[in-house]
Amino acid sequence: MEQVAVIDLGSNSIRFIIIEITQNGAHKLVYQEKESIRLSAGMLENNMCLTEEAQQRALKLLSVYAHIIESQHIGTVLAVATAAVRNARNGASFIKRVRAKTGIPMTVISGYAEATLGFSGVIHTIDEKDFLLFDLGGASIEISLVKNKKRVKSISIPIGAVTLTQKFDSSDEISSSQRKEMEEFISSKLHRISWLPKSGLPVIGIGGTVRNLAKMHQRKTGYPLPKLHNYHLPVKELFKMIDYLSRTSAHERENISGLSEERTDIIIAGSLVIEQLLELVNAEELIISGCGLREGVFFRYYDNKYDRKKDYLKNMLVNSVKNYRHSIPLHDGAHASHVTKMALTMFDQWKPLHRMHGRERKLLMTSSLLHDAGMLINYYSHARHSAYLTANARIFGLSHKEQIMCAFIVAFHHGYSRKFLKNNPYTDMLEDEDWDTVRQLACFLQLAEALDEANDRAVEKIVCSGTSHSADMRVYFSTDNVDILAHAVTPIIPVFRKLFEKPLIIEWFPEY
Amino acid sequence: MEQVAVIDLGSNSIRFIIIEITQNGAHKLVYQEKESIRLSAGMLENNMCLTEEAQQRALKLLSVYAHIIESQHIGTVLAVATAAVRNARNGASFIKRVRAKTGIPMTVISGYAEATLGFSGVIHTIDEKDFLLFDLGGASIEISLVKNKKRVKSISIPIGAVTLTQKFDSSDEISSSQRKEMEEFISSKLHRISWLPKSGLPVIGIGGTVRNLAKMHQRKTGYPLPKLHNYHLPVKELFKMIDYLSRTSAHERENISGLSEERTDIIIAGSLVIEQLLELVNAEELIISGCGLREGVFFRYYDNKYDRKKDYLKNMLVNSVKNYRHSIPLHDGAHASHVTKMALTMFDQWKPLHRMHGRERKLLMTSSLLHDAGMLINYYSHARHSAYLTANARIFGLSHKEQIMCAFIVAFHHGYSRKFLKNNPYTDMLEDEDWDTVRQLACFLQLAEALDEANDRAVEKIVCSGTSHSADMRVYFSTDNVDILAHAVTPIIPVFRKLFEKPLIIEWFPEY
Repeated sequence: MEQVAVIDLGSNSIRFIIIEITQNGAHKLVYQEKESIRLSAGMLENNMCLTEEAQQRALKLLSVYAHIIESQHIGTVLAVATAAVRNARNGASFIKRVRAKTGIPMTVISGYAEATLGFSGVIHTIDEKDFLLFDLGGASIEISLVKNKKRVKSISIPIGAVTLTQKFDSSDEISSSQRKEMEEFISSKLHRISWLPKSGLPVIGIGGTVRNLAKMHQRKTGYPLPKLHNYHLPVKELFKMIDYLSRTSAHERENISGLSEERTDIIIAGSLVIEQLLELVNAEELIISGCGLREGVFFRYYDNKYDRKKDYLKNMLVNSVKNYRHSIPLHDGAHASHVTKMALTMFDQWKPLHRMHGRERKLLMTSSLLHDAGMLINYYSHARHSAYLTANARIFGLSHKEQIMCAFIVAFHHGYSRKFLKNNPYTDMLEDEDWDTVRQLACFLQLAEALDEANDRAVEKIVCSGTSHSADMRVYFSTDNVDILAHAVTPIIPVFRKLFEKPLIIEWFPEY
Repeated sequence: MEQVAVIDLGSNSIRFIIIEITQNGAHKLVYQEKESIRLSAGMLENNMCLTEEAQQRALKLLSVYAHIIESQHIGTVLAVATAAVRNARNGASFIKRVRAKTGIPMTVISGYAEATLGFSGVIHTIDEKDFLLFDLGGASIEISLVKNKKRVKSISIPIGAVTLTQKFDSSDEISSSQRKEMEEFISSKLHRISWLPKSGLPVIGIGGTVRNLAKMHQRKTGYPLPKLHNYHLPVKELFKMIDYLSRTSAHERENISGLSEERTDIIIAGSLVIEQLLELVNAEELIISGCGLREGVFFRYYDNKYDRKKDYLKNMLVNSVKNYRHSIPLHDGAHASHVTKMALTMFDQWKPLHRMHGRERKLLMTSSLLHDAGMLINYYSHARHSAYLTANARIFGLSHKEQIMCAFIVAFHHGYSRKFLKNNPYTDMLEDEDWDTVRQLACFLQLAEALDEANDRAVEKIVCSGTSHSADMRVYFSTDNVDILAHAVTPIIPVFRKLFEKPLIIEWFPEY
């Protein structure tokens, strides 16, 4: 077991996370702190030096973190400082001061490294292949072009939410001419990037401004999930929100639901940067990444030590589900793995029957692997608890809706329940066709679960086929108690018939 | 680590559970199966012998259980058979047959032992001192009188839901004269018990009939919790349900929500026994126990091996919460324990301020111990996840409402959240005064949490006092970073003032 602390000293905020890595290499976030300390504040008037007050604010928190690191015996500390320190004339002496006062070995990273690490945080946690990525901080923005999961271009530009706010004095209400001036300034900087695609490539955004805008949108639309990572925000609606923000005073902004208090002053400058960028690349939606620099710092360390082949990157979903499973002690992992295998076999062999594809297969796999996880909470009603875990699991590679679909499949693994849907906050996220998918996949999971009713892996093989009149399954088993399996499968047969409009015919073959 | 299997071969159903005992003595249910096999069916016409069909039904399931026991390498098997086998003329030869065919060493227990074990299951899981207990099975009812948690009287009478149904042919619709005849028969049996109290002592009921009636009542009233254990059912409403049941046909009963299919025939006979007993003792409510004989069998084994001093019995709540905590791996158990200590210190020293009592103290203790458990599910939103765990935890010694209050206290341990209440299925379970309690206790928990903001147990002592003008707290700390604690406490001060109508004045004393 190893604990890794990551500190990200940004120009606006400082972040501190602790990640636990277990013996089998599973990793898990176990602590997080974030404070807005405005390290870059006052630099413009201070001859481009970090002010003494700003340094003190940082040192105070770093001392606390150092104390936690020491008291929790954390062996690995990865600490990086970004644009504010990078651009400050007294940056180097500040880093020495940090080392002397707190013992924390902090590295000032270049804009290029910042882009690299932000990219790493995203590419480990969002399953997109080709996209434009930006990370808007307090004093800089990093932009990268990603093709086939590789970063092909990167740039760091020293415009950020805090520095722009100071430059244009935009912390309170701004005039329309002021807005225009800011937009033109930002636009002129962005226009210099020759490789920016104009073709409406997906855009992924990192940073506090992005997260705050997404949170405001979620509050406004009553979004049922308390999750920002991988949230998709339509650009049209985002622009409306930014227009509105640009016409409010700082005081008025204090009452906007979702907008953090510490950001009422810098939100306008930050929003305008995002607006200009999205406009320039003709984006239709902005995908929010809650993971960025600090996760990137962690993964650089982790991949080097635990995953040199980058297995994790190759199959994000499977690996993150496995990672999650390792962090919750399952009573009977072998049962879950066996059920998963059988459910996927049905899915694969019955493709002509259900006509579903790779995405749905992923949903079935995720649901099968997690279907019993809720036993940890309570054996009674464990399908419901497993559904709760599935909906809230820190897994990557599914959309929000897909993860909720998995939760419903899990909930129904002992049969469909109308009661579960009543008052469920997520029910409205699914459309009619999603429900069809959920019920069909849940039926496969239910069948697979019934075929391991005695928890003894007695079914060695299943062969699924079909005609225009029926769906057929041959079950090869090695048990004296096949009756119990047949008994368990019985109530599912009419369900199957209703869902697939064909009778399910099961034949049992002993294999001794 | 040890696994214990318990098999309860009843006259109506057979039950099989597996309980895992970890190295530190924590125990946890990890598997459960139940089948209605009607072992006592047909005995009347079969010269009081178990029929061959009934024996085959039992043997088939017992083989399956034996197979699971073997494949999971379960070392300890505790198997008991009750009234059907006890009263059968061929009981002994059946037990031999079970042993020969499955290897399971089954013990036929006496009516007295059955009462003893049922009592044990209840006294470990429901925190009542003085009560009347009954366990209504398929072929017998055990009744015990409990004073000060000790059983002072017991009796087993051979009337049960299955045997009475056969005797009076009451499986379908019954006439009013038939009902009267049954009631008189039951009443005559019960009237022979000289020690039955007539004073309205609380009545706790075990058994499938009781559970089914409770489930029907929960469905009818839209009860938000999926939990039967410790459910309180008003006798007036129960009698209305029984009246209704007595006028329905078996076919009509098939559509009653909550009534299990396997019980549509025997529910009337079972209900009438309960009705007669409750009437005789002038009960106002029936408390349902989901734990009974099989938990009793387990606890007899467990207490002997792991808890000879019966610590568990002495403080059910604390011990069951600790037991639950052991089954979920907490990242930082020391933090939770420290926070619990501080929260309870505040509660104890500020009694004149809040005027709450022992019950509320128990709520605060439970909430504090579980406040971070949700990190297991996901670090993000962990207060919400801890609340989910708390609401669904297998802990004993609280009423349903109290456990839900704990969940809300846990949910608010970083501050009150209106959003959490919206769409929460449990919100309506609490009255205005319960909300006051929840918010006040959550405020203590929040203060205690803030005082360990850096997770380093830096606060060594707190002394709370008060005047008519203010509430005062002296904090003795050993840290260079007291600012972080002061900072964490700041947002709670206005909350405190609002809730207790007094300003909170905190003084900080370094202890080096």
